[in-house]
Amino acid sequence: MGGRSVDREGLVARLRAGLRPDQVTATPADRAVYSYDATWTEGWPDVVVHAESTADVAFVLRVAQDLTVPVVPRGGGTGLAGGSVPVGGGICLNLVRMNRILAIDPADGVAVVQPGVITYDLQRAVEAWGLFYPPDPASLYMSTIGGNVATNAGGPRCLKYGVTRDYVLGLEVVLPGGEVLRLGGRVMKDVSAYDLKQLFIGSEGTLGVITEVTVRLLPRPPALGAMAVAFDRLEAAGEAVVALLGAGVLPLMIELMDRGVMRAVEAFRPCGLPVTAEALLLVAADGEATAVREALARMQASMAAHGGRLVRIANNAEEAEILWEARRNISPAIGRMAPYKFSEDITVPRSRIPEMIRQIQQISHKTEVPILIYGHIGDGNLHPTLLCDRRDPEAMTRIANAAAQIFETALNLGGVLSGEHGIGLLKRDFLFQAFPATTLEKLLAVKFLFDPKGIMNPGKKLPLPRGWV
Amino acid sequence: MGGRSVDREGLVARLRAGLRPDQVTATPADRAVYSYDATWTEGWPDVVVHAESTADVAFVLRVAQDLTVPVVPRGGGTGLAGGSVPVGGGICLNLVRMNRILAIDPADGVAVVQPGVITYDLQRAVEAWGLFYPPDPASLYMSTIGGNVATNAGGPRCLKYGVTRDYVLGLEVVLPGGEVLRLGGRVMKDVSAYDLKQLFIGSEGTLGVITEVTVRLLPRPPALGAMAVAFDRLEAAGEAVVALLGAGVLPLMIELMDRGVMRAVEAFRPCGLPVTAEALLLVAADGEATAVREALARMQASMAAHGGRLVRIANNAEEAEILWEARRNISPAIGRMAPYKFSEDITVPRSRIPEMIRQIQQISHKTEVPILIYGHIGDGNLHPTLLCDRRDPEAMTRIANAAAQIFETALNLGGVLSGEHGIGLLKRDFLFQAFPATTLEKLLAVKFLFDPKGIMNPGKKLPLPRGWV
Repeated sequence: MGGRSVDREGLVARLRAGLRPDQVTATPADRAVYSYDATWTEGWPDVVVHAESTADVAFVLRVAQDLTVPVVPRGGGTGLAGGSVPVGGGICLNLVRMNRILAIDPADGVAVVQPGVITYDLQRAVEAWGLFYPPDPASLYMSTIGGNVATNAGGPRCLKYGVTRDYVLGLEVVLPGGEVLRLGGRVMKDVSAYDLKQLFIGSEGTLGVITEVTVRLLPRPPALGAMAVAFDRLEAAGEAVVALLGAGVLPLMIELMDRGVMRAVEAFRPCGLPVTAEALLLVAADGEATAVREALARMQASMAAHGGRLVRIANNAEEAEILWEARRNISPAIGRMAPYKFSEDITVPRSRIPEMIRQIQQISHKTEVPILIYGHIGDGNLHPTLLCDRRDPEAMTRIANAAAQIFETALNLGGVLSGEHGIGLLKRDFLFQAFPATTLEKLLAVKFLFDPKGIMNPGKKLPLPRGWV
Repeated sequence: MGGRSVDREGLVARLRAGLRPDQVTATPADRAVYSYDATWTEGWPDVVVHAESTADVAFVLRVAQDLTVPVVPRGGGTGLAGGSVPVGGGICLNLVRMNRILAIDPADGVAVVQPGVITYDLQRAVEAWGLFYPPDPASLYMSTIGGNVATNAGGPRCLKYGVTRDYVLGLEVVLPGGEVLRLGGRVMKDVSAYDLKQLFIGSEGTLGVITEVTVRLLPRPPALGAMAVAFDRLEAAGEAVVALLGAGVLPLMIELMDRGVMRAVEAFRPCGLPVTAEALLLVAADGEATAVREALARMQASMAAHGGRLVRIANNAEEAEILWEARRNISPAIGRMAPYKFSEDITVPRSRIPEMIRQIQQISHKTEVPILIYGHIGDGNLHPTLLCDRRDPEAMTRIANAAAQIFETALNLGGVLSGEHGIGLLKRDFLFQAFPATTLEKLLAVKFLFDPKGIMNPGKKLPLPRGWV
């Protein structure tokens, strides 16, 4: 798609021929509104389409295929890798109007939803039935299930319950040209074909458009407990996590905040975090009430043996809410500290967490870039966050350098570039370090098998030949 | 590959040039030994190769690609769909010598194994570290991890813990031509590429050969409890399961035996099953001891409300062992009842279990084919088993008819042809009913993307053009 210019008027006319006027807009204001995500990247679409049905999506993908125009699917726009930014122009395909929960079925243990359903709305709706949808990306009040599936979103609870992929039983997807594929469904076990839906999970809109999702639901756990444990040394917190998880305990979550993050949160909305400590772990357990209490006691003892000091204990969901609030405030709190932030998402094998932390600290020191560290440490998934000001080119060079060193370190430790945010635009160029050419070739072959003209979210997720966006 | 005849001597010579003499055998006795699996299908390979390393596998796949010779990977040979039977001749690639556990790492929470490791050996090995590998196909004493991954094997515990797919973090696979791909690894979360390893999980040897598997491990649950509950009507057992799972309980497993199965087990090895009842449910829970006890009490009350009568309760793993033994004896017990059995594996949405049972009973009545019903009813995964004698052609026609009706019923109820056994040879021709042509086309495109000459386990898993094996 790179470098092609789109006949905007012709495109709009074609789209208007099959959709209501309010579904197709190309005003500068609307194009600007859909030009960004939660990163600093931006790119104006030529036209914004608000799809309301699978038929709408199929129509748009037929037109786009005919005219060889890029299609960039968009949910809540909360992405942290530039995945939904229309850097090559074309059609922004907004799916938030497809926001109906089509079924919640306790007998089958599933919910069927349109892609634009907000994750939190689904969680609340199934909880009314005593059911539980575990994946909980920090963006859950704004991000959509379609976006969660397209990025295989994670979140704190994924330590115990797994990521979005683990809950997707069925998908309806529309391919370039408008073909509709229904993959999987309401059955819990299915080995009747290659599991093609797995390719679409985490594909970041580069293969097709997700128009319906069937998710597996669990019984809602009756009890929840949590605690905050402080450590004098950041690395010791990492060691405590490795020891805890190696000792036969599976907490609901283990979240890390370093001192800089605690200070940012306290400055944003004070809640009594132990800012003199180097690190804080938020640890939670869920299940039957007695089991939760036993688990908390075991976890406290395990962490105490590694220098962990109990700061606060929450014996139920209401008390735990205070701790979660601190966790949820991290992103806005950091956002106030600098004009921009570069929030990383590397994941390493659990045993390498202390080493990864040590090396991030060294990189920060060497490059003179302040790096805050928080994240889903129990999964080995850290979000080292580099504060920056894009108006300062010298600082930006140091930041790019620090980020590259973080990536390289993670890869050297057997880790990956992204645990849950995705590759999008921002990490695309690092794929050459992460994968051998033979693997990249296979990834591209899969891409072009489903999207032969390369119109689906071009420039994202995959390394593309020079000259492309 | 269909109809091609292999230059056996040339093939053996090429293989012997790169392997030790005892790794390559083409004697009639050896070819006969590797001509079957746990079904009645058979087909002699031209040559049997015993691989001992990834390099061996890569060598074999280079030779096979050069000569365009079929390769049929084989683990324990316990498959129930003909998947490892070399019906088109070629190379039987036996992987059971690759049976080393390469690492058990409690800190990372993973084990790394070669494909020929017996599933039970892995379970026992990790349990010594206080860890837990949940997938437990009934064949676990004989089947291999490689075979489990290639079929995405299930088992009773999958109700709570999910199937083999849910535990595979990393795969090493060898493609036709000998290229080695390493996909995933020791990280718990990874969104840095399309998840290609998912295509190989459940691919039944049709894309490449699995040469190393990294699995995720859980902490070993401290306690286990189980109970046997009898029902006067088979359908009522199905209704009790739907009610139980819809009421916020997630048991470790719910296994069904109908009266015919109980009688077979009692005839094989008596253990006091309530053979006057129409159905028995074996229900288990695991976790902390107190939580297990509470769960058993809740489950018993729920099933009593649907006519379930408690027959036996097991408060720990040793007592539960008696119940598992009855469950494990099903397959050998049924095996003694008739010269052959046709063991089905349909899966339906949970709410459709009672209807599926009702229709199987009607099909049995209409076709005059005795059908035993057991299986992982909590997953909607039933194994209706048709007893038969292949020497009676009239009976075999009725049986084929009954099986076709069972498949059709499952598909009509939103179910699938196979929950855990795979498609192999036996269900291949039903794929045209299960999937629209556009989906089949995509499946074939994926197949030929990885295996352009179609040498990997030809004739299995996928519908193939006429004239092929």
